[in-house]
Amino acid sequence: MHVILDLCVVPLGVGVSISKYIARCEKEIKACGLEPHLHAYGTTIEGEWDKVLGAVKRCHEVLHEDGVPRISTTIKLGTRTDRHQTAADKVRSVEQELEA
Amino acid sequence: MHVILDLCVVPLGVGVSISKYIARCEKEIKACGLEPHLHAYGTTIEGEWDKVLGAVKRCHEVLHEDGVPRISTTIKLGTRTDRHQTAADKVRSVEQELEA
Amino acid sequence: MHVILDLCVVPLGVGVSISKYIARCEKEIKACGLEPHLHAYGTTIEGEWDKVLGAVKRCHEVLHEDGVPRISTTIKLGTRTDRHQTAADKVRSVEQELEA
Amino acid sequence: MHVILDLCVVPLGVGVSISKYIARCEKEIKACGLEPHLHAYGTTIEGEWDKVLGAVKRCHEVLHEDGVPRISTTIKLGTRTDRHQTAADKVRSVEQELEA
Repeated sequence: MHVILDLCVVPLGVGVSISKYIARCEKEIKACGLEPHLHAYGTTIEGEWDKVLGAVKRCHEVLHEDGVPRISTTIKLGTRTDRHQTAADKVRSVEQELEA
Repeated sequence: MHVILDLCVVPLGVGVSISKYIARCEKEIKACGLEPHLHAYGTTIEGEWDKVLGAVKRCHEVLHEDGVPRISTTIKLGTRTDRHQTAADKVRSVEQELEA
Repeated sequence: MHVILDLCVVPLGVGVSISKYIARCEKEIKACGLEPHLHAYGTTIEGEWDKVLGAVKRCHEVLHEDGVPRISTTIKLGTRTDRHQTAADKVRSVEQELEA
Repeated sequence: MHVILDLCVVPLGVGVSISKYIARCEKEIKACGLEPHLHAYGTTIEGEWDKVLGAVKRCHEVLHEDGVPRISTTIKLGTRTDRHQTAADKVRSVEQELEA
């Protein structure tokens, strides 16, 4: 089951500046063999369900190992069986509508 | 790793009435050995990470098996290492603050 | 436009314990003339769009006034024109499906 | 109060293909004088709270006017008082951490 997932990890108890923790997650997602696409309010990942959700778990594990006491994460994720669609396809579909 | 998770599954391509699909997910979460707590905009589940996230995967699988062509899901989830906290503890903490 | 909204406010830079800030939001939502329904991962509010979203804005304002330097909030919200539906109706619909 | 907001609008009751509705929202956000940044699972908008949240309301209004009977939207939004930060600043902070 292919999944497109938007991940937003918010570490608590480490002050207001959280970019180094987000960078830590980006590295871990790559270490899981996935290609994160960073945007201003999260990161898009896509692939097989177990691999993608496994990467999300690893993000929580490595941040806790790095001393983050609490993490609050928001995820949006989509699956479909009617056709195969990538994250890039989704953006392209909207852009084509805008050009039409 | 204990996780408290808020699950909101939105099936697409099946019309505006989605309560029967939410009910299907409630049953599947119970079949996974977890106790869902339904509220007006989602369901709270808690337990070991793999069991809880496994139940989320099962929800997608059973809805697709039931003919739902596309699913868009929103998840909020939290883990912490400073202390053990249940979903009921979280509500109680806020209620105690309100009474204080 | 009637809206059902799930609000999850996460204050950053104030440590790991955030229940007093959630309680502060509950009070502010009531002060706005709305009835919040607290659950383990957020609060449900419903009513006219401007009133409900106005309450969300007030939550951010009062937390910043109370010294919270940064807030990350997740919202789910729904509107529909096919029929009037309350937050209680949504839960009841799923429960009826479960009983059927 | 400056806000950075991630908007994900999901129209229900209009089938599985929703890109034209997302494109409609992009146009409406621009018509509100804001610059949407589309990504694979939403759109980032930033600016003054009332203007940004006003654009979100307009998205719901125009989709309902276009015949969408039900909309389920997920929003992530952040405000901070410790310093001014744009959406581009957020991405840059993480990229700098990754290069370090």
